[in-house]
Formats: sequence, C-alpha cells, structure tokens
Amino acid sequence: MRNYETFDVEKVTLQSGITLSNARLAYQVHGKLNADKSNAIVYPTRFYGTHEDNQFLIGTDMALNPDRYFIVVPNLTGNGLSSSPSNTSPPHDRSGFPGVTILDNVRLQRRLLRERYGIDRVALVVGWSMAAQQAYHWAALFPDEVERIAPIAGSARTSPHNHVFLEGMKAALTADSAWKGGNYVDPPKTGLRAMGRGWAGWALSQAFYRQHLYRRMGSATVEEFLVEFWEELFLKRDANNMLAQIWTWQHSNISDNDTYMGNYEHALRSISAKAIVMPSETDLYFPPDDSAYEVKHMANAELRIIPSIWGHYAGGAANPDDVAFVNRALRELLAS
Amino acid sequence: MRNYETFDVEKVTLQSGITLSNARLAYQVHGKLNADKSNAIVYPTRFYGTHEDNQFLIGTDMALNPDRYFIVVPNLTGNGLSSSPSNTSPPHDRSGFPGVTILDNVRLQRRLLRERYGIDRVALVVGWSMAAQQAYHWAALFPDEVERIAPIAGSARTSPHNHVFLEGMKAALTADSAWKGGNYVDPPKTGLRAMGRGWAGWALSQAFYRQHLYRRMGSATVEEFLVEFWEELFLKRDANNMLAQIWTWQHSNISDNDTYMGNYEHALRSISAKAIVMPSETDLYFPPDDSAYEVKHMANAELRIIPSIWGHYAGGAANPDDVAFVNRALRELLAS
Repeated sequence: MRNYETFDVEKVTLQSGITLSNARLAYQVHGKLNADKSNAIVYPTRFYGTHEDNQFLIGTDMALNPDRYFIVVPNLTGNGLSSSPSNTSPPHDRSGFPGVTILDNVRLQRRLLRERYGIDRVALVVGWSMAAQQAYHWAALFPDEVERIAPIAGSARTSPHNHVFLEGMKAALTADSAWKGGNYVDPPKTGLRAMGRGWAGWALSQAFYRQHLYRRMGSATVEEFLVEFWEELFLKRDANNMLAQIWTWQHSNISDNDTYMGNYEHALRSISAKAIVMPSETDLYFPPDDSAYEVKHMANAELRIIPSIWGHYAGGAANPDDVAFVNRALRELLAS
Repeated sequence: MRNYETFDVEKVTLQSGITLSNARLAYQVHGKLNADKSNAIVYPTRFYGTHEDNQFLIGTDMALNPDRYFIVVPNLTGNGLSSSPSNTSPPHDRSGFPGVTILDNVRLQRRLLRERYGIDRVALVVGWSMAAQQAYHWAALFPDEVERIAPIAGSARTSPHNHVFLEGMKAALTADSAWKGGNYVDPPKTGLRAMGRGWAGWALSQAFYRQHLYRRMGSATVEEFLVEFWEELFLKRDANNMLAQIWTWQHSNISDNDTYMGNYEHALRSISAKAIVMPSETDLYFPPDDSAYEVKHMANAELRIIPSIWGHYAGGAANPDDVAFVNRALRELLAS
C-alpha cells in the first residue's frame, strides 16, 4: 500500500536545457494545512533516502509536529520514487537519465506547493545532507517565500574535497565490469559492495570507530559493520540511481544559475530566512569550516555545531543525543 | 645503476610462523659510521615509497646530515625492492606472499644493523606514515637500543577507522575483475585508477582542496589532479605489492606480539626513547587525537602537531613549510 502521493508534470525544462518528460515528484504529507496556509514545512530527502527515512524527526512530541504543521516530504529525484534512472522512459532511462540539479528539484517542489496546495510561502525548509542543499537552494533562490531554514550537515555548494570523495565512490562502483557503463543486466554487486565499504570510512568519524560505536548500530566488529550494514545497504540500491544523485550532489551550488551567475557570496547574502546552520563537529564531508563561511555571509543565520562524534551521521537518526540536539534547535527556530 | 644495497637472509621466520625464504631488505646508506658506532639513524620508507622518496629530509644543511650521521634507509617489504609479491619465488610470489608485519620488518632491519655494521644502538628512528609505525615498533620492542624516535603522521597501532579507510581502498582495487584474485596477467588498470581516485580524498585535507593547493602540485583543476597525479601514481604500482603493504599497515600494532600480548598501554609505557611525535593537524588517517593518546602513555615524549592543511601529506615532501617544521624538530631532538 503506497503511503505517498505523486505530483506529475508532463514536461519539465531542466537547468541544463534538457526536457524531461513525465517528471514525477513522489511526496508524503503529514498534518493539515491551516486556513491562511502559513504552517507549511518542506522537509526533503537525503542521498538515496525516501520519505520513510525522514520519519524520525516528525511526531506530536517533536518540533516537526503534524498537529501544528503541514509537513511536505518531497523525495529527491534519483531516489527511485521521484523521477530516476530506474523509472524513467527511454531515452532518459538508466545511464541516459539527464543531470537534474538541486535547483531543478526545488523548482518542482515549489510547483507542487503552489499548484496543488496554493502555498506561496513556507515556514521552514529543513533537511539533512542533500536535503540541506535543498534548504539552501530554497532560501537563496526564493528568499521572499522562505521564512526559516535549518540545513543539517550539508552545504550551500559542494566543496572540492566533497567532490573528490564522491569521485572515489563512483570509481569504486564503476570499476566493476558488470556495471557495463550503466547498461547492467544484473546489478554490479562487486562494485556496490566496494562502494559500501568505501563509504563506511567517510560517513562516520575517526572517533566513532575509535569508540566502537558501530556496536550501537548492531555490529559486533568492524568487519561485521562493513558487511552487514554497509555492503547490504548498497546492494539494495540501484547503481544508475546512485550515480544520478551523485551527479546532483556534485553539481550542488546555490549560485550556479541565471540568478547569481556564479557569485556565491551574493547568493549567500540574498538569503533572508532566519537560519540555524547545524554542521556536525566531526563530519568528514561537510566540515564546520565550510558552514562557518556560509553563516558569515548570511544575514540572519546562526552557526550551531552538533557536538557529536557520529560524523556525517550526526544529522540522521542513528544517535538519540544528536536527534535531540537538532529537535531543540528546530523548536527554537520555529518559535522565533 | 643500482643506488642501494641488499641484505639477504636465507630463511626468516615471520611473526605468523611462516618461513620466508631468500628474504631481502633493500637499503641505502648515507654518511659514515663513526668509530664508536653511536651515530646511526634508521629512516625507513612509507607506503609504496622507496629510499628515493626519503631524500628530501637528508642533506648537509638538514638535521639528517650525512656529514654527521650514518643514515640507513631500509625499504619496507612489499615496496618492490625489499621482499615483495612481485619479486619473491613461488609459492610466496604474488597473491601467495605471506603477511609480513612491521615487527618482522624491524627485526630484519635490526639484523642488518648488527650483522653487517655491528650497530647495537641507534641514535634515532624517524619516518613518515608507515615509517612512523616502524619507529614506534623499534622503540617499543627494543627500548634499550633506541635513543630517540620521531614518528611523523603515523601511529603505534592502526586505528579501526584507518583500517576501514584501507578496506575501502582494497575494495576499489579488487572490484576490477582484471585483478583475478591477484593472478592478473595485465595490471588491473581500472581498479588501480579507482584506488588512486579514492585515495586522493583521504591523503589530503578538506582545507587543502578548499584552498586549491593541488595547483601547487602542478594540477590546474581537481580532475587534472585526480588523473595526472593520483591515477598515474597508482597505475605505476603493482596491485599485489600494494595489497601486501596494506596487510602490513592494517596489522600494525606495537603490542600485537609475544612481548606485550596485546597490552597496548604497556607497550607504550615501555618506550623509553626520547620522542617528538608529529601528527598533522589535518591528517584524515592519523588524527592528532590518536597521537595524543600515545604520548600520554609514553615516558619521554612530546606531542608536536604540524600546523598544516596538507593533511597526511604534511609529513612528506610536498609542502616546504611542513618540511622545515619537521626538520627543526629533528634538529632539536638530535641535539638533546
């Protein structure tokens, strides 16, 4: 039984100029839109996550309270539910899937809110990782329509190091000849496993492993963690879908568009939304230094570093203390 | 023309119990041994480095001055010059090469010094990365024979996170079916390239890329750096040799032997050598926290963090400021 809706658009012109036919945004809603349509929250999904993976921050006892807010969770393209290599018709299927930017996604999300719900202003855009990228794009490109943002362990543009990390992951996946340039018949399992084993070092911190916190995630040993958590996670994923999302991630940049013409600081300065920016202290892909630079150029932003050794995962559901930290910040932000 | 010597041993019993026949230590010497044999420095090699790569710290204007010291540069097994998968006879060739530990190496180095030169005490063991591991092993296993150590961007035991990083690298290399379980005819080029692209993110820091320091290494763009520096570097290397050295790296632990029986703190406390321990502030594989723990348990050690954004490469030859920092510390240590 499907627990999400879809917003279908016959033709979408992407930033690249390519037209994507029968584009689809899969999304889930929580709560009710109030009479003056002032209680909408946009809470997009992260790399390969779906609306299901976003549940952990939503609840009647949480800041994202469906009794008070109308929470829209749009799935990022490439995740297998929204338009993706795995569900698009030729010639845009599989390795033919065009590059879809974060801005392309945000524009689709905005159409969904306007055309289906008549919402032209959102109370908050919040999200972790690639969802934080979406929050930044919302605020930079539509400053008059976004009251607050809470980017968690993400960035307003992908840094060169972050790009390099992703190059390593792509190379590991595509080193498997079963990948066949994206035209695989059977999944490239060796490459998917290699990607999982590689990702394991990046997603969590040195201190996470030093303190054996994989045990809290149910693995007795490091090798068990690599096989049972990381390899299994990546074996469930579609290679072309991941490559599509990595393309999106690598091209994320709030100023790479006609509005800002590459002027990153101008784009940051244009963000008027009240923001609490929450990098994780130990995130190896989005280090706090990059967030500090963003905050310095934003008009109404606070840097609030998550004091965690869970690395990038501090922004996710894995560690209750981090979830509580983020939830407190969201409560405060929404009350302000 | 060969610029190194060899020390050949007919049979070596390894820590594993396996006997390696015709074991070879390739080494280079600089300077002259003095009459009382008190001026010997051991300066081993790093991952896939050779004695050639160690030249940058040696010179008459440097702390490692061949006019004053007798500097022995032993090549680490697996580097293609000392015993390695690529140069050993069956059944120990290629993927049949046995696991050789850091301690196995240090024992061979010690035999070289004693049997060929009559040296039973060294003034200093110094080295970067896997060579720092060798310095720690010298000091922990032969405390009465080592006056000083200077481990640079290395560790006394391989941390779980460092192990995971290496698992990712192995997985990228071996995802290439041309690897054939180590029985490749032609080099697994796709896997070697994937390993190079993956390694690029780990060896240097986020800030290194943020500040575009790859330009100082001769690459105009990140992609050029990945292809011209990283892929080329790994394409020159033998896959089995690298896997042998990764095995050595992953198993590095000063307490994993009959002397210390796994008691890491006991092994650290047994180090009596005067030490200056130099992690790089931004090293993603040997973060300063691990070095601080080591120093805390050592009797005569100082933690001196290299203030650098060159990541792990702060211990190498790439950045003149880092070389100067290390050289000053070595000068001070040798004078004390």
